[in-house]
Amino acid sequence: MTPGLTPISDLFARKAHIMTQIFAPRIGIAGITGRLGTFCAEEAGNALAGGLSRTADASRNITTDPATLAKSCDVVIDVSHASTVPAHATAFAQAGCAWVLGTTGLDQGALDAVNAAAQHIPVLQAANFSPALTLFLELARQLGAGLPDYDAEILEVHHRQKLDAPSGTALAIGKAVAEGRRVALEDVARTDQNGLRPDGAIGFASLRGGQIVGEHDLVLMAADEQITLSHRALDRRVFARGALLAAKWLAGRPAGLYTMADALKP
Amino acid sequence: MTPGLTPISDLFARKAHIMTQIFAPRIGIAGITGRLGTFCAEEAGNALAGGLSRTADASRNITTDPATLAKSCDVVIDVSHASTVPAHATAFAQAGCAWVLGTTGLDQGALDAVNAAAQHIPVLQAANFSPALTLFLELARQLGAGLPDYDAEILEVHHRQKLDAPSGTALAIGKAVAEGRRVALEDVARTDQNGLRPDGAIGFASLRGGQIVGEHDLVLMAADEQITLSHRALDRRVFARGALLAAKWLAGRPAGLYTMADALKP
Amino acid sequence: MTPGLTPISDLFARKAHIMTQIFAPRIGIAGITGRLGTFCAEEAGNALAGGLSRTADASRNITTDPATLAKSCDVVIDVSHASTVPAHATAFAQAGCAWVLGTTGLDQGALDAVNAAAQHIPVLQAANFSPALTLFLELARQLGAGLPDYDAEILEVHHRQKLDAPSGTALAIGKAVAEGRRVALEDVARTDQNGLRPDGAIGFASLRGGQIVGEHDLVLMAADEQITLSHRALDRRVFARGALLAAKWLAGRPAGLYTMADALKP
Amino acid sequence: MTPGLTPISDLFARKAHIMTQIFAPRIGIAGITGRLGTFCAEEAGNALAGGLSRTADASRNITTDPATLAKSCDVVIDVSHASTVPAHATAFAQAGCAWVLGTTGLDQGALDAVNAAAQHIPVLQAANFSPALTLFLELARQLGAGLPDYDAEILEVHHRQKLDAPSGTALAIGKAVAEGRRVALEDVARTDQNGLRPDGAIGFASLRGGQIVGEHDLVLMAADEQITLSHRALDRRVFARGALLAAKWLAGRPAGLYTMADALKP
Repeated sequence: MTPGLTPISDLFARKAHIMTQIFAPRIGIAGITGRLGTFCAEEAGNALAGGLSRTADASRNITTDPATLAKSCDVVIDVSHASTVPAHATAFAQAGCAWVLGTTGLDQGALDAVNAAAQHIPVLQAANFSPALTLFLELARQLGAGLPDYDAEILEVHHRQKLDAPSGTALAIGKAVAEGRRVALEDVARTDQNGLRPDGAIGFASLRGGQIVGEHDLVLMAADEQITLSHRALDRRVFARGALLAAKWLAGRPAGLYTMADALKP
Repeated sequence: MTPGLTPISDLFARKAHIMTQIFAPRIGIAGITGRLGTFCAEEAGNALAGGLSRTADASRNITTDPATLAKSCDVVIDVSHASTVPAHATAFAQAGCAWVLGTTGLDQGALDAVNAAAQHIPVLQAANFSPALTLFLELARQLGAGLPDYDAEILEVHHRQKLDAPSGTALAIGKAVAEGRRVALEDVARTDQNGLRPDGAIGFASLRGGQIVGEHDLVLMAADEQITLSHRALDRRVFARGALLAAKWLAGRPAGLYTMADALKP
Repeated sequence: MTPGLTPISDLFARKAHIMTQIFAPRIGIAGITGRLGTFCAEEAGNALAGGLSRTADASRNITTDPATLAKSCDVVIDVSHASTVPAHATAFAQAGCAWVLGTTGLDQGALDAVNAAAQHIPVLQAANFSPALTLFLELARQLGAGLPDYDAEILEVHHRQKLDAPSGTALAIGKAVAEGRRVALEDVARTDQNGLRPDGAIGFASLRGGQIVGEHDLVLMAADEQITLSHRALDRRVFARGALLAAKWLAGRPAGLYTMADALKP
Repeated sequence: MTPGLTPISDLFARKAHIMTQIFAPRIGIAGITGRLGTFCAEEAGNALAGGLSRTADASRNITTDPATLAKSCDVVIDVSHASTVPAHATAFAQAGCAWVLGTTGLDQGALDAVNAAAQHIPVLQAANFSPALTLFLELARQLGAGLPDYDAEILEVHHRQKLDAPSGTALAIGKAVAEGRRVALEDVARTDQNGLRPDGAIGFASLRGGQIVGEHDLVLMAADEQITLSHRALDRRVFARGALLAAKWLAGRPAGLYTMADALKP
């Protein structure tokens, strides 16, 4: 073989790997033994390259070391815990492995680590991987902006075990409407059920019952018309499906910080 | 003419009157100058025989004296004020005039007067004349009884000027569900929006916006199915239309106390 | 032991059996290997006494002989096939075993066999075991009767694989409304989407998408109000849960033919 | 007074006129005696400068000559008839009067006239002036683009007198979804109610009843979630209110062709 030339078989192997990355990136899951992680692993199917958990399991290619996982993956879906973010940031950035980050409740240190990693690798951060809810928040912003004088109310329905109200997603919807109106949600939110709503209020109401996964309605009302945007999560797997969609979209992108909305742009 | 025999012409006149009563009773309206009274007068059309108000208006056959009105009517729709009930009871009973009573907030004295009148004339008492809402309350009772273990939630939507929440109709729906379950609404009602609902709770939530006349949803939820009964009032005239329907049904009935549900029975 | 007297231990045993029948009847499932039968078996839990299928499986107490199954059960949930009805009727009647019959598409011979069995054992026959849908049909009848002049429309939504439209349940709802109005559904049903609806029409419309288990809306509309009854099946297990509810209610009843509505009466 | 200088009083008068134009343009209505024109006149209130109709009425400042109307107005709301478009285009362009054009069914000649006028005056052309429906169409496009694999269904509900189905607005919604998906609506629309929907189909269904002004739902369904965008017109005045909003936004703009969406941009 002529020195300096890559053997044909290597070229094919490399091309195959690139094709794999483009069409079916190897996916790792941090937090693979949690509920959402389990769903993600099922959705990943043959693309699943391994996982990260507190307990290693060689039979399923589960490690406790983020660097080890990163080496075997093109992209990691991270649904573990906020406390692991700085260590993951370092490991994934060094390995050049794309990072889909679904962990919430990040402190400033974690946020700084995410931003630093995004200088080196593509990072997609999202509180919610549902494709339709991602669009919902964007449309809510536009409705808030385009119909500034309409009365806005947000209704959410969840299973009877849910303790907090309004739901985090309902608050995120309210925030999107408020952003569209260039006001602060805390100045206009009304969660009480009594009394006259002041102009520009964004009201919240909650129903609880059965095993409803999650329903959210945003209603904008004028005297002569009303427009409603409604979302229903029918199966918690929607979040895993969205995370996979994000991972496949993210693998191979340039370094930078992306959102779920970016992954849905046509 | 043979003494003791009613002249033929009288018989015809009497029959014509009976026919009129059956097919188009002469209708009076107590409270004819109020908003609902005005709608009732419009709905009555040619059947309108006169009205009762604080100020007489001979041109429109409006009197201030209930006995005068009663004499010219087969049935009076009473949408005036609770304080007038005892006087109306006496006047209508003496005149043998049917009484559709839509006034709310009756005290014990008024209730006694209504019961006394019902010994002599047909009285139909209703808080709400909407045919569909009347059925709604009956169906809510059956849903409460038939699905005792389902989580029950009531949602109501009204125009932005409405101060109180939940609406009176929402509470009436809750009461119907509670009756079906043989519990007292006050023991199971939950109007707060936070925290876990105990078993058997009946929850309430309210939205406010635009010029919504009134919408009510009763939702019963199990883990595997849910059933919802919804009512939308689109025009306040529904209450006038229902009152007219009640009046036409009531005229010529035997003395007694009737409900709106009776008037809807096929 | 005195001859002729039942030993105390036997009395206790007999009482225990009666208690079992009352509080936890032994349940058999005909068609136990089908999808609904499998769900029923899971719902039955410890009360499951055995099953009937085309292939016996001693390890799960599954037999191919209805008489054998009937002997070990207080009640059989029959979700097998219409062709088995006459043989089951004979076997269950002879064994004195209650019969919850969910098989549809019975011909006259099968119906005759059911009626004959109902002379000897309690039989509950239902096309649909969902408690809420059972009530829905009853309430639809009342809405049809109570609001005879309202425009009636039925909307159903099902998963994208469903070929036929309107759904069988939508037609059953239409039939209930028509019964309430004392008309024949075939004289008033309108499944086309074009043209003016004649007075008294019952319209049907269908949506298809996703994996929707089944949603049905009955809407009754006047100019000034509308009332909607909606059902959503969230999980196919609702039909199994309802069949179990029916079985527990039926065991120990007097002979006769019952409906699912009977089992829901408070 | 120094020759050549505009007297102060004139400057004030001119400024006052400019302020009037900016804050309260003088509004004319072409087709003022039609139903929508009548609503527009009522909405315009004090800003109403005059109207155009087939019959002049000096007492209400109604003329038959578009040039005469244009001279007394800053902006004309044109809800007359497609046949008048070329004449209006010439008259309004010559007078420098802004033109809000709500007439539908324009032929090529009319469209050419509109484009020619837009070289000289601001023209806002819209098939529908409802602010929420305008946004609805834009959001439908985004939903079509962002959720390309979701099953799309459009449901519309209208009063019982409506003959055609699906409604024009339902078709416009379908077109917006199709545009978002870069397909032609005619290739994917399914208005029949039977049979399996092919991948990528956009289905339509219609309900008719009561006096419903117009309701439109766009539902996008996946196996695990669904998103719905719903619009309800509660009062036909919404179209007049929207036309006024458009007129106030358009007066004083640079020449060009605008859409209702432009007028709603924050």
